[in-house]
Amino acid sequence: MDGEFKLQCPIPLNDYPHITMAHGGGGKLSHQLIADMFRPLFANDFIQAEHDGVLLPIDGAKMAFTTDSHVIQPLFYPGGDIGSLAVYGTVNDLSMCGARPLYLSLSFIIEEGLPMQTLWRIVQSIKLAADRTGVQIVTGDTKVVHRTNGADLFINTAGIGSLEHSLIIQPASIEVGDVIILNGDLGRHGIAVMAYREGLEFESQIESDCAPLNDIVQSLLNAKIPIHCMRDLTRGGLVSALVEISQKAGKRFEINESTIPIREDVRGACEILGFDPLFVANEGKFITFVPPAFTEKTLDSMRQHPLGRDAVVIGTVRPGEPRVLATNSFGGSRILFMFSGEQLPRIC
Amino acid sequence: MDGEFKLQCPIPLNDYPHITMAHGGGGKLSHQLIADMFRPLFANDFIQAEHDGVLLPIDGAKMAFTTDSHVIQPLFYPGGDIGSLAVYGTVNDLSMCGARPLYLSLSFIIEEGLPMQTLWRIVQSIKLAADRTGVQIVTGDTKVVHRTNGADLFINTAGIGSLEHSLIIQPASIEVGDVIILNGDLGRHGIAVMAYREGLEFESQIESDCAPLNDIVQSLLNAKIPIHCMRDLTRGGLVSALVEISQKAGKRFEINESTIPIREDVRGACEILGFDPLFVANEGKFITFVPPAFTEKTLDSMRQHPLGRDAVVIGTVRPGEPRVLATNSFGGSRILFMFSGEQLPRIC
Repeated sequence: MDGEFKLQCPIPLNDYPHITMAHGGGGKLSHQLIADMFRPLFANDFIQAEHDGVLLPIDGAKMAFTTDSHVIQPLFYPGGDIGSLAVYGTVNDLSMCGARPLYLSLSFIIEEGLPMQTLWRIVQSIKLAADRTGVQIVTGDTKVVHRTNGADLFINTAGIGSLEHSLIIQPASIEVGDVIILNGDLGRHGIAVMAYREGLEFESQIESDCAPLNDIVQSLLNAKIPIHCMRDLTRGGLVSALVEISQKAGKRFEINESTIPIREDVRGACEILGFDPLFVANEGKFITFVPPAFTEKTLDSMRQHPLGRDAVVIGTVRPGEPRVLATNSFGGSRILFMFSGEQLPRIC
Repeated sequence: MDGEFKLQCPIPLNDYPHITMAHGGGGKLSHQLIADMFRPLFANDFIQAEHDGVLLPIDGAKMAFTTDSHVIQPLFYPGGDIGSLAVYGTVNDLSMCGARPLYLSLSFIIEEGLPMQTLWRIVQSIKLAADRTGVQIVTGDTKVVHRTNGADLFINTAGIGSLEHSLIIQPASIEVGDVIILNGDLGRHGIAVMAYREGLEFESQIESDCAPLNDIVQSLLNAKIPIHCMRDLTRGGLVSALVEISQKAGKRFEINESTIPIREDVRGACEILGFDPLFVANEGKFITFVPPAFTEKTLDSMRQHPLGRDAVVIGTVRPGEPRVLATNSFGGSRILFMFSGEQLPRIC
């Protein structure tokens, strides 16, 4: 390999001679790595679409394809575990493309010393999550590596879904006037994991919102709502998703912060931990961009589903420079940016 | 998750209370984990086929799907690196299904502290390998985890391929009388990595045989050879592949050891390191099962390809109990079994 390429590393090595935790945090450095290193090098029509998954033509059919590695610590936390997360994470990425999730691959990297019973619990959780979402685990791989600090485990799932409609659900389909709808309250996954990890106790135990979004998305598709774009709010939370989509869509988003549902216990925990809930990871929340004429129909559809009972309009798409403007209940406004450091390591 | 399943762990916990390196080594314990834990739990028609990849129906089309996580140490070794290995490994698994590899996903798990320049070299190697094989990297994911002993890197690739013929290439298609053809010499990948890792020096440097097999397989398909089964000889080497296929096919294989090409330097290194070359991992070698009438045509096709110049018949399929019998040049014979421990850790 040496000498076959002469291209200079596109990341400024003086600034970032090494990979840092922030390169995996879902903020600015993550995006720089993807935008400056990966995407230009692998440039093709598919990867340019810059979505949670990719739409591929194969033998006359159209399908969605996505991948996600899961490195969450601890392996079990209130409301979930790495097994169900690995299924729902990939199911949700396929759902955000508007695809019906069908098949998953399952690849383990296990540190020696992991209790067999722990693996068994996780494998069963994967099975339960797959059954709940109607996907099939069809192929897999297992690697074992030497033990380091603990007995750790990573899970990669890649997923394939079918497209059964003619919508083109992507940032480029967003139009001025679209409303932005959120399916529920923010911050529970990140806070549940962080509080558990740090041994913090609050009045009530906060549980992760980890859930499969395929069914609620299917209900929107069944209702013939012309969805322009969807995105689940994982690493980097609501703000990172909005900023990224705004840039890709080339449009300004205006968000009304006071409309965003955040539970009181989550808000309190965020204050104690010093987090802004708008940046905290979720695993069962997503935003949907729809034409304004479909606002009520979308809200109605969502609210009939257990995962959308608290659905609300949180903002609209405006003409102007790509940026995300948030107004608060006092009438003030601020421009939202991706965080540049690392908020929560190993959260998904 | 707790309490929702009552099934007892199918691995005897007294014998194996923890995951060991051998559970990832490609031998008996790897197979036990798959056969006793994963496969029964995820039971479906696809996963039962027990092949390197899976054939899936999607929207009227038929495609192959596979996944592989790569954990090789060191990241760069004579003849290759983890980047090209991650591409060729998955390309080869698709090829062994008789599929034309089309699309790959690419997922990194990086330890903080990895030099940015190292990542850049690996990413370029991936690009080069993808171009060489004609596959496109279409979607990806990056996670960063805390540093442990060194600055390590794992790469998962999942792959999708199209099926452009009507053959059913799988162990169950093997028939009594089939000949078993090997495309070249054994043991170079494992010995190259092991020697480099241990700082051993031999007269000549042994390089990995890491190479993409899609083109040579395509040449066999183009020649209309009715292939019954193919398998690449990675973790666990030739013997593990033969034993596994023999069991699935329910047939006896007779191998003539003296026909198996092994380079003198590889044989010498194996003697020094205490390895049996028939168990050592390869990354550019595969066995093909074809009807006896197609022996010459298969050998001719292979030998016209740079990756098949040393192609030879190494054995035949016989009636009888599923087992693998090896005869040597002295007329002796032995039954070959999978090794039960771990031969080479982190070899792929």
